[in-house]
Amino acid sequence: MQQWEVVEGSLASAQGFRAAAAATGIKKKQGSLDLALIVSDAPETKGAALFTTNLVAAAPVIFSRKNLAESHGRCRAILVNSGNANACTGRKGMQAARECARAAARLLGLEPAEVLLASTGVIGVPLEADLITSHLPDLVKELSAANAPAVARAIMTTDRIPKSCVLRSEWGGKPVHIAGVAKGAGMISPRMATMLSFLTTDARIGPQTLRQLLRAAVRDSFNRVTVDGDTSTNDTLAALASGVSGVRVSSGTRAAAWYLKGLAQLCRTLAVMIARDGEGAKKLVIIQVEGARKAADAERIARAIANSPLVKTAIAGSDPNWGRILCAAGYSGAAFNPGKVDIRINGLPVCRNGLDAGFDEASAREELDRNEITLRLDLHQGRASAQIWTCDLTHDYITINASYRT
Amino acid sequence: MQQWEVVEGSLASAQGFRAAAAATGIKKKQGSLDLALIVSDAPETKGAALFTTNLVAAAPVIFSRKNLAESHGRCRAILVNSGNANACTGRKGMQAARECARAAARLLGLEPAEVLLASTGVIGVPLEADLITSHLPDLVKELSAANAPAVARAIMTTDRIPKSCVLRSEWGGKPVHIAGVAKGAGMISPRMATMLSFLTTDARIGPQTLRQLLRAAVRDSFNRVTVDGDTSTNDTLAALASGVSGVRVSSGTRAAAWYLKGLAQLCRTLAVMIARDGEGAKKLVIIQVEGARKAADAERIARAIANSPLVKTAIAGSDPNWGRILCAAGYSGAAFNPGKVDIRINGLPVCRNGLDAGFDEASAREELDRNEITLRLDLHQGRASAQIWTCDLTHDYITINASYRT
Repeated sequence: MQQWEVVEGSLASAQGFRAAAAATGIKKKQGSLDLALIVSDAPETKGAALFTTNLVAAAPVIFSRKNLAESHGRCRAILVNSGNANACTGRKGMQAARECARAAARLLGLEPAEVLLASTGVIGVPLEADLITSHLPDLVKELSAANAPAVARAIMTTDRIPKSCVLRSEWGGKPVHIAGVAKGAGMISPRMATMLSFLTTDARIGPQTLRQLLRAAVRDSFNRVTVDGDTSTNDTLAALASGVSGVRVSSGTRAAAWYLKGLAQLCRTLAVMIARDGEGAKKLVIIQVEGARKAADAERIARAIANSPLVKTAIAGSDPNWGRILCAAGYSGAAFNPGKVDIRINGLPVCRNGLDAGFDEASAREELDRNEITLRLDLHQGRASAQIWTCDLTHDYITINASYRT
Repeated sequence: MQQWEVVEGSLASAQGFRAAAAATGIKKKQGSLDLALIVSDAPETKGAALFTTNLVAAAPVIFSRKNLAESHGRCRAILVNSGNANACTGRKGMQAARECARAAARLLGLEPAEVLLASTGVIGVPLEADLITSHLPDLVKELSAANAPAVARAIMTTDRIPKSCVLRSEWGGKPVHIAGVAKGAGMISPRMATMLSFLTTDARIGPQTLRQLLRAAVRDSFNRVTVDGDTSTNDTLAALASGVSGVRVSSGTRAAAWYLKGLAQLCRTLAVMIARDGEGAKKLVIIQVEGARKAADAERIARAIANSPLVKTAIAGSDPNWGRILCAAGYSGAAFNPGKVDIRINGLPVCRNGLDAGFDEASAREELDRNEITLRLDLHQGRASAQIWTCDLTHDYITINASYRT
């Protein structure tokens, strides 16, 4: 099978797609991009999406779920705004969502059911549909490959860096692309589909297969990230497949296995970007648990460590406080023998058989001063493993979130 | 039934008890109290205790569990140190625990099995038993009612205020006391017995009844507190009953109902003190969930809100971000209709039927500037309710925990 390789590009690197972004004033800071439109020109384009598992779902989530069901996966456009989540906004929020989708559909010559919506930002504040609909005519005129890179910036909230990735491979001599953007930063926890992420591809994939493949890719990518354990009301991962490459990917075929490899790689890349750019984060932290009896045990332990404020503040302070790591494993609910556990920080043993490994304090601090840290636990009790990505917990997280609304 | 009333005093207010504290050098800061001894002079004293549910249990927890089982609840003394948790210290840690208990027993004329141990502080660092045993002879000489108040200070780690409470009541004309001290601050989460807390009483209670009563009292007190969601390796709640008052409390009697009332009140008082004095906390936050279909749902929602870093940082910044509160309820796993939820901050409605209640921003900020805040959710879907106590999440939590070991 042909490998997938990272290439320069944008969502429009997948053939058939154009995109653009605009500053509408939803974000208070003047001139900040806060609206993006992603469109496929191929009439046979199919879409699939995964949404938050939060019982409190935002209007665009409710709207898009319904749309995808009604259109049987026929989907040509994604309209997304940042600066306002349109969550906890009731009937008026649903109405605003419908207005935006209708206006976009009219301008693009589509049915409203072919438009997906997504929003991110403050919760509980009414979304002024006018701000969006009044900017849509210009936005539609701006749709192009050249303007597509702006989408990654337009979906940012407290993100410090735009997150995008493009992969390219070949199948039967034909080039195929998968491109993606994502936003993360806060209210990020793994018990869901994902935060916001939009993928475009020129492979030809039916909506059910696309959804299956997304589910499989998400399990070991977006669902492995946690910044603060808070699952958002707006999480959405949506993918559009234009089919323009002429390469068909059907469920259960060799092509599907090849395609999933690329899709999973893309999602992992974006997921790690989200962990690295967590609110206030200075360090990417990879929790690797090995030697568990069951994968579920390994995952529980990795998640407990990744969500422990005490572990995360210790990492922020470059304090090799391995006792907190073992403590979090202990309350995770997983079964293991603490007396057999080894812990290494970037390869440096700090705990052996559940006890202080007699490490050099200065070396440990040096490892923890890096901007990428792997905490590796070996339970020595089986062959199962799990990996979770997170970040350190710093003063900046508090600063950002103590006055997010105002 | 006679009411329980709060009175001035210490652990020695319960008849039959003496106590004392010393500075041994386990804590780095010179002259800091870090060792305490609580002793009953009544030969018939019984003890009971609840311990952490963390799989990684500290040596004193393992030791005390075993002791209580072997002595069938005969227990006369509690020896507790702060500054070192004696956790993740393996065989050497167990040996240090045994040495300390043996030395205390010898000096007090007791069996080692009549001594309970507790430790709190840094995890994974060997405990030097010599520091404790060399100070024990003087500590035993100092045992008195006058020296008992020092215990509350000697068990502190990152706590800013000592926590103690004494209750008094009468039964059949005879005065009865329950006194308690506690330490909290960090690594505090409710899925366990408690943090460290020691109670003395002059009621006459068998060890099984005492344990039953402790379990009942803890359910709505210590197990309702969370500071950071981290369950410690050393949590211990131990109670000694001297019997000196002559008032017998037997399981299932009216006296037991009366006694439980006082015990629960004492535990609640100490638990609220712990939430108020959470690491870095400036505000006590009471999460009250009402109108749930099941108590388990109410509790899930209250716990999710109490552990949400986004809710807690918003409270630190006096930001009435009610959307985060509803969001946390939504991912709690509890079943409810978001469109029926009302949220009030200290009585001020901020969310009605899941939507912005149209509140005055300045009034909401004024409520959030208080040092005691009640977030009240009414689900309007049933009659069950739950309460959880927590605190805000501030810069000081990060500062304290980024360099706790060093």
